[in-house]
Amino acid sequence: MRALQLYHGGAAIVAALLLSGCGGGGGSAATPTANTGNGGGANGAVQEVANARGLTPGDILAAVKTYTPSGKHDDYIMFASGGHSGQVFVVGLPSMRLLRSIGVFRPEPWQGWGYGSTKSVLDEGKINGKSISWGDTHHPALSETNADYDGQWLFINDKANARVAVIDLRDFETKQIVKNPIAINDHGGTMVTPNTEYVIEGGQYGSPLGWSYAPISEYNKSYRGSVTLWKFDREKGRIDQSQSFALELPPYWQDLFDAGKGVSEGWIFGNSFNTELATGGLEDGNAPFEAGASQRDNDYMHIINLRKAEAVYKAGKFTRVKGFPVISLQTLIDEGILYFAPEPKSPHGVDVTPGGEYMVVSGKLDPHVTIYSFDKIQQAIADKNYTVDAYGVPILDFDSVMEAQVEVGLGPLHTQFDDKGYAYTSLFLDSAIARWTLGGPYADKHPEDPWTLVGTTSIHYNVGHLATVGGDTAHPGGKYLVSLDKWSVDRFFPTGPLLPQNFQLIDIDNTGEDMPLPYDMPMGVGEPHYAQIIKADMLQPWTVYPEIGWDPQTQTVDSTAPKSEADARVERNGSNVDVYMTAIRSHYKPEHVQIRQGDHVTWHITNIERAQDATHGFAIPGYDINLSLEPGETETFSFDADRPGTFSYYCTEFCSALHLEMTGYMLIQPIEK
Amino acid sequence: MRALQLYHGGAAIVAALLLSGCGGGGGSAATPTANTGNGGGANGAVQEVANARGLTPGDILAAVKTYTPSGKHDDYIMFASGGHSGQVFVVGLPSMRLLRSIGVFRPEPWQGWGYGSTKSVLDEGKINGKSISWGDTHHPALSETNADYDGQWLFINDKANARVAVIDLRDFETKQIVKNPIAINDHGGTMVTPNTEYVIEGGQYGSPLGWSYAPISEYNKSYRGSVTLWKFDREKGRIDQSQSFALELPPYWQDLFDAGKGVSEGWIFGNSFNTELATGGLEDGNAPFEAGASQRDNDYMHIINLRKAEAVYKAGKFTRVKGFPVISLQTLIDEGILYFAPEPKSPHGVDVTPGGEYMVVSGKLDPHVTIYSFDKIQQAIADKNYTVDAYGVPILDFDSVMEAQVEVGLGPLHTQFDDKGYAYTSLFLDSAIARWTLGGPYADKHPEDPWTLVGTTSIHYNVGHLATVGGDTAHPGGKYLVSLDKWSVDRFFPTGPLLPQNFQLIDIDNTGEDMPLPYDMPMGVGEPHYAQIIKADMLQPWTVYPEIGWDPQTQTVDSTAPKSEADARVERNGSNVDVYMTAIRSHYKPEHVQIRQGDHVTWHITNIERAQDATHGFAIPGYDINLSLEPGETETFSFDADRPGTFSYYCTEFCSALHLEMTGYMLIQPIEK
Repeated sequence: MRALQLYHGGAAIVAALLLSGCGGGGGSAATPTANTGNGGGANGAVQEVANARGLTPGDILAAVKTYTPSGKHDDYIMFASGGHSGQVFVVGLPSMRLLRSIGVFRPEPWQGWGYGSTKSVLDEGKINGKSISWGDTHHPALSETNADYDGQWLFINDKANARVAVIDLRDFETKQIVKNPIAINDHGGTMVTPNTEYVIEGGQYGSPLGWSYAPISEYNKSYRGSVTLWKFDREKGRIDQSQSFALELPPYWQDLFDAGKGVSEGWIFGNSFNTELATGGLEDGNAPFEAGASQRDNDYMHIINLRKAEAVYKAGKFTRVKGFPVISLQTLIDEGILYFAPEPKSPHGVDVTPGGEYMVVSGKLDPHVTIYSFDKIQQAIADKNYTVDAYGVPILDFDSVMEAQVEVGLGPLHTQFDDKGYAYTSLFLDSAIARWTLGGPYADKHPEDPWTLVGTTSIHYNVGHLATVGGDTAHPGGKYLVSLDKWSVDRFFPTGPLLPQNFQLIDIDNTGEDMPLPYDMPMGVGEPHYAQIIKADMLQPWTVYPEIGWDPQTQTVDSTAPKSEADARVERNGSNVDVYMTAIRSHYKPEHVQIRQGDHVTWHITNIERAQDATHGFAIPGYDINLSLEPGETETFSFDADRPGTFSYYCTEFCSALHLEMTGYMLIQPIEK
Repeated sequence: MRALQLYHGGAAIVAALLLSGCGGGGGSAATPTANTGNGGGANGAVQEVANARGLTPGDILAAVKTYTPSGKHDDYIMFASGGHSGQVFVVGLPSMRLLRSIGVFRPEPWQGWGYGSTKSVLDEGKINGKSISWGDTHHPALSETNADYDGQWLFINDKANARVAVIDLRDFETKQIVKNPIAINDHGGTMVTPNTEYVIEGGQYGSPLGWSYAPISEYNKSYRGSVTLWKFDREKGRIDQSQSFALELPPYWQDLFDAGKGVSEGWIFGNSFNTELATGGLEDGNAPFEAGASQRDNDYMHIINLRKAEAVYKAGKFTRVKGFPVISLQTLIDEGILYFAPEPKSPHGVDVTPGGEYMVVSGKLDPHVTIYSFDKIQQAIADKNYTVDAYGVPILDFDSVMEAQVEVGLGPLHTQFDDKGYAYTSLFLDSAIARWTLGGPYADKHPEDPWTLVGTTSIHYNVGHLATVGGDTAHPGGKYLVSLDKWSVDRFFPTGPLLPQNFQLIDIDNTGEDMPLPYDMPMGVGEPHYAQIIKADMLQPWTVYPEIGWDPQTQTVDSTAPKSEADARVERNGSNVDVYMTAIRSHYKPEHVQIRQGDHVTWHITNIERAQDATHGFAIPGYDINLSLEPGETETFSFDADRPGTFSYYCTEFCSALHLEMTGYMLIQPIEK
């Protein structure tokens, strides 16, 4: 047999396989130069390919603006919510490549998220004892130090069930989920205060606080809005629920919040809609919500003195709803914590300028952005220049707090900022991004007059949020803007009736009208709402876990974890079986695990690799177990061995040439009957 | 109040919003021309940007080869498995943009997959009555007509739990999941016969058939391999379990299968490893599986006469295991259905050439690909030129069936084909793709000698599968190859210790050694194993569902579905409540749903839109409900109203400027105590 003899000479290969199993993938290897194309005579070749593919000169320019060669890293990282996918997505700019999803409010099997030790985190999000298998992630918020992103933590809310999650940016994994005990859903989360003292979670639709029942006829009396201030303990990396509290608000539908910074640090600002207190019911001949909540000319920007609220909370001037501290609406009024200012009706969001001087609101039924001055707000409060709403909340005089209005186009929603004194507002109805100028301390940064529209760029289609580099911070970075378009319609090959969203990259590097749109990124794995963009070098992720036996939930070494193959064993105490297992290319130890039907099994497994990317999976058929074990990681899971059989566990992550051989047998002997 | 008066003039805007709510997103709108860059003087601008970004001439060429301008569609569509994400991914080529995920073996909330009518499909995949929340998708297989992809169906297996799913490519949604009743896991699935008569599902690790228990000491006697032939009913779009059967195989670990085509139609071919019958147990001083299963010089290619097997099955010559028809190993031998041929040890996959003349196998511990001739196999069978294995299976003489061997490099795994008579083999250890020439009827298609290595392209790193356009069909398309690299290590900005895979696009349009690699696509949402690439115009997806009230599970109109707002109502029969609801921009009808604690609720909801991309979501807080309703779609779900309260349901898909107003209240009145 000729062939079979030929590879007798391959003994060295086999030995290499058994030892490392990994060819080009050594963690410390220098980056090879990729063979990306014909090096010489490229100019002619470029034109030839461009002609064949129908690319215009503008297309070629767009291509070189975004193309990121094999092996080169993106300069910026965008964190986008996944909407009702319940995830967060990590995208590189300018290439607009999706680098990773992060499992948050739902199990994410390929990450092992929700299957091992992390199941307890998902379980923190249970509602009335019931598991919720999804979330509606809306607004990611990077942690901040001095009002700039610090690259350490990411917060994200679940609008559907009023929950907030904490993600650690050392390993890009979710560490905590808190359930809001009083709000049934949220929208105005998450945003952080300038040093991440608090994570802000505003509610959305009015409802009786604490998930209780009241007939809709009692809307004005029994339904309420809220905003919750979650205290973040940076040292522990967790929200401290024992130091958190909420504010009772009128049952207007609070929408987005933003924290003051710079001159306005210590205050938070929100907007609202349905100050009409419409209760819908078109089936009974009433106006539907969409009309009923759009009748009045103005809604109310919420202006909240957070420092004072914190002091009032610490002084114990609160009641408890479902055990959670809530400062009553009357206390907010009495203590001078809550003020309103009229805002163009039905706005999406309020955005604070980099220095904190101005609050920008866009009523989506008004073609203007409206800019409020923090100084003027303070003066109006001092002057008591207000009337009151039906609940007794002071409404500041509009003209006395408004700084400017700029007509930007139809359906303005959200605003972001750059480093040149420009603001950018998404226009849902015009399907465009408007660039306009800030005034005041920003007036010298751009060549145009303050508070004027500079230009617009069309997008495709129906933009919701937009994100610029550091667009929520004291020091926005400029350069790129991403338009988060809700409809893609005809932009991509249709994948059935369900189409992707469209993330469009806009180049905002130049001044003036010039804002080219070089790239369309289909977003077909979720329905993102908002995103934040950070310079990549501000993130310091781990490439492997610091030590073998690392528990990502505690971010310390687990003293019970097996740390070398010498620790691998099976221990039995009556019907309790503890399995201590190691994983390394390309075997588990032990390879046989003998169990008896009815045993309770606790399984501890450690990936004892130290090379970057040497991830192993671990799956057990029929028992709904799948783990992803990054280098050094240990996981623990337990189950009742209620079904006998022969279960071949195996590695679900292609780890080496002998990956398919990385298996073993869990043998569950049946109870004799 | 100056500002508030300004937008009184906006009444027309408000009216437009209430009626349609959608600006630029009309389904039939002509594609606007995007403002992608400076049109004039682009050449200088291109070079300037390239210099600033450090792009070489080769990089620019690569950019124009792959860049797909805003609004232009990709020419090719790739379907990739998601590995232990349990999904399928749809990617456009050459832009390498992820267009969409498809939920298969796990709930996918943003698609509503697993929450409405589709829950029953997920439930088909239960194992011993227990829900499994994930799967390990491995090998997608497009349906074929005359051995070419026909763009109608996609099949995918779950290695972890031996299940097979059917996806309808009209709407890119999963329609069926079948659980293999005898195999505990699978790997050699899915592949289809040339007219999709059967979907092939090979097993993987040896185990007692039917999920039963046997001690590992009885491996040779009680453990078995298997391959299952699932009959596909194209008219019903479902696997017909009543016409499906399996073959009992020796407990070698069967790996991938491929169907014969052309001259070899009616046969199937598989490979195997661990013909050593190693049983592992390094904790007891035995050789670990990785060594024990790598001892012999050869394993066995499985050669199966499917037509004969089908006839034997139809003649009733089978036994039943867990009620499922299994043709015994002895019957396979007696009837001349199963033959072996020695193959280089521990191969991954067997690949049949476009015309069906040759079977290509790569033993990963041998630097060659080995090519078998179907004619020679037939001759060897006719000549009875064989010995037998321990189970009595004939082993054909290697030299009599081998056509050629080509030395390609270290760690060869899988092979694909193009339109120029080339074959491409992934090299795991070399981290490269090898191009080599076919002989026989393919020898005139390329300039080189037959059965020779032409050249290699380095990849980054550790390629598993590879995919060419139509690479499994009778008419491969050439042009592009995608290398599915398992490790990315340093190629992308690190997203913590868990890194993406790397999909690398290789341009195979030229002959000879030139195979440039223009694009790296991070794949950070799963761990894909295999992919198939089809020309986009061979797919005919629906852009909206054909009629209002469409049930995607039956692909017909649901007679009970509400089809217009006139059908919206709530019906009560004792404690059974039926809700009939419609969704349209921007309201549900009804907006109030009154329920009593303890009621059983069945909810029918239809999106009555007809515009492309006018998708609505529907979520109920706390009740773990989220739907995605594409235009025309109806969904039904039911639940017990066990928790009283005030639940604001809302639209989870940003559908219009008044999307946030698309809400209503489910009021569950508590039982008085």
